[in-house]
Amino acid sequence: MSKPCILSLAVVVAASIASASLANAANNKEPIQPIAAAKTQNPALAELGKKLYFDPRLSRYGFISCNSCHNLSMGGTDNLKTSIGHNWNQGPINSPTVLNSSMSVAQFWDGRAKDLKAQAGGPIANPGEMASTHDLAVGVLQSIPAYVAEFKAVFGADKVTIDEVTKAIAAFEETLVTPNSRFDKWLKGDKKALNVNEQAGYKLFKDSGCVACHNGPAVGGNSYQKMGVVEPYKTTSKAEGRSAVTGKDADRFNFKVPTLRNVELTYPYFHDGEAATLKDAVNTMAKVQLGKKFTDEENAKVVAFLKSLTGDQPSFKLPILPPSSDSTPQPQPFKK
Amino acid sequence: MSKPCILSLAVVVAASIASASLANAANNKEPIQPIAAAKTQNPALAELGKKLYFDPRLSRYGFISCNSCHNLSMGGTDNLKTSIGHNWNQGPINSPTVLNSSMSVAQFWDGRAKDLKAQAGGPIANPGEMASTHDLAVGVLQSIPAYVAEFKAVFGADKVTIDEVTKAIAAFEETLVTPNSRFDKWLKGDKKALNVNEQAGYKLFKDSGCVACHNGPAVGGNSYQKMGVVEPYKTTSKAEGRSAVTGKDADRFNFKVPTLRNVELTYPYFHDGEAATLKDAVNTMAKVQLGKKFTDEENAKVVAFLKSLTGDQPSFKLPILPPSSDSTPQPQPFKK
Repeated sequence: MSKPCILSLAVVVAASIASASLANAANNKEPIQPIAAAKTQNPALAELGKKLYFDPRLSRYGFISCNSCHNLSMGGTDNLKTSIGHNWNQGPINSPTVLNSSMSVAQFWDGRAKDLKAQAGGPIANPGEMASTHDLAVGVLQSIPAYVAEFKAVFGADKVTIDEVTKAIAAFEETLVTPNSRFDKWLKGDKKALNVNEQAGYKLFKDSGCVACHNGPAVGGNSYQKMGVVEPYKTTSKAEGRSAVTGKDADRFNFKVPTLRNVELTYPYFHDGEAATLKDAVNTMAKVQLGKKFTDEENAKVVAFLKSLTGDQPSFKLPILPPSSDSTPQPQPFKK
Repeated sequence: MSKPCILSLAVVVAASIASASLANAANNKEPIQPIAAAKTQNPALAELGKKLYFDPRLSRYGFISCNSCHNLSMGGTDNLKTSIGHNWNQGPINSPTVLNSSMSVAQFWDGRAKDLKAQAGGPIANPGEMASTHDLAVGVLQSIPAYVAEFKAVFGADKVTIDEVTKAIAAFEETLVTPNSRFDKWLKGDKKALNVNEQAGYKLFKDSGCVACHNGPAVGGNSYQKMGVVEPYKTTSKAEGRSAVTGKDADRFNFKVPTLRNVELTYPYFHDGEAATLKDAVNTMAKVQLGKKFTDEENAKVVAFLKSLTGDQPSFKLPILPPSSDSTPQPQPFKK
């Protein structure tokens, strides 16, 4: 048999397995669906966005980039209770992961940005975060010849705009999908991908009601829910959630349900970052959302399942940023 | 002619050109020598060091990594006058580039660390920088199972030590060499690699005496020199340079001569970061070190030559860091 025939056969077999798995998943009506790697529509746009995502010059003082608080080496978070901003400002809320954030119903814990593009402009101009303004940030980029050339190649115009900046960052963020978790492999039919403990944890996760909110491809991210359904959630955090956007008292303490993909990497947990470990987070969720108490053994099983949701992490070369020019404003981080 | 023959011929021709260029360079007795990519002796050690270099958990508050101030996306510097440390502390000195730093006679502007390994431990334990202690940093790493396994694979021991940590970081930093600058190509015989202006700038650089200090493969980095030879250098910086190490009054304001490789990327310039542009830096150096005044045209030529020293920037995948465990101490960046 010649080589091309072997390859063809392999393709047919692989396709059969794939369609059988998908059919299987569909038949099972699982509340969570596997995710696939992002297909980039415009690689040049995403590549420009990657540079911007890593560029601290988008902040007024040249030190904080998107990657500072949504660190792609660390699950797309900063692994802090709440984030550090300009002048070591204490942020009001836990930094959510950027991984798979394109699947969310909206952005920020309170959903105040309708999509990633709308989100990207927020931290740049937030005085406690990157502390710049859109005009300043665009002015910096406009002073950097290699950026101007790259924006022109991508957008066809000589003038950089904040609309282009946020569009590019969003396009990069849309690539940050994490397929191939062990759980997804299991969903797709590889029954050895999860051990008995992890499978038992998934059963508990479903049977206990966690899937009521944590479902869909992102295992969350697709609804707002009250933090403290069965009993009030006690916290010193002043964040009130969705009501800040809708103005409705009924929306107080309603937050976007976070994705649980890569949850092993995105500690600490909740909008206030008060749960340091997955064990704590599972116990608190069971208590305040479900009126339930897991035994230590049950908790460990759920945690084991949650750890199977870690997918392929972002894989790309560290971007090299174009140098400033003589006309780029010099950052003055210590000016009073 | 069969393919192998063509290849052999190509190899012979290439080898001839290479040896001719080397001979040419040697004959010319140029004060600057081309650099070659680093040969990594122990890739697993350098790989571990790369993770540590990007890991903000080496700082007490989980936000600042080696890469924060020696950013490999930005010429191995932070492009700030002086660096931002813990609690937005204003650093006392400009952050020197880590690129090609393995070629330096010693580390830090005052040479107080004899090598990269000795340097790496400094910022971790500096209260105004990463604000940790060696014990704390090692304790954090020891609490992270995947790090413990990686240290064991590399060093063969169960216990992580600060000696291993700094050895790994230094091994990674040794890989950060930037070959193939246009100037190096020109040195090696590619006479089209520099334009007429850049060649004129190099001639000025030699004829004016810049090469007295900026020479060798790193175009500097190999001696200490007084800042302000011909006339005093005026600055508000309190850094006194080499005398802080030797205790000798004669060493006051003696600083390690910085490498000029990638100088286009390592703005602002001098130990106090007071020269914002290469134009400023060249003018000041001419004035206080050489008692000279370049015309604008001469200055532009020297700057054009300096920009030809930008080599291949670091090229590797963004490292993915192992997650903390339930026993890892939680950073408390805002605790009073």
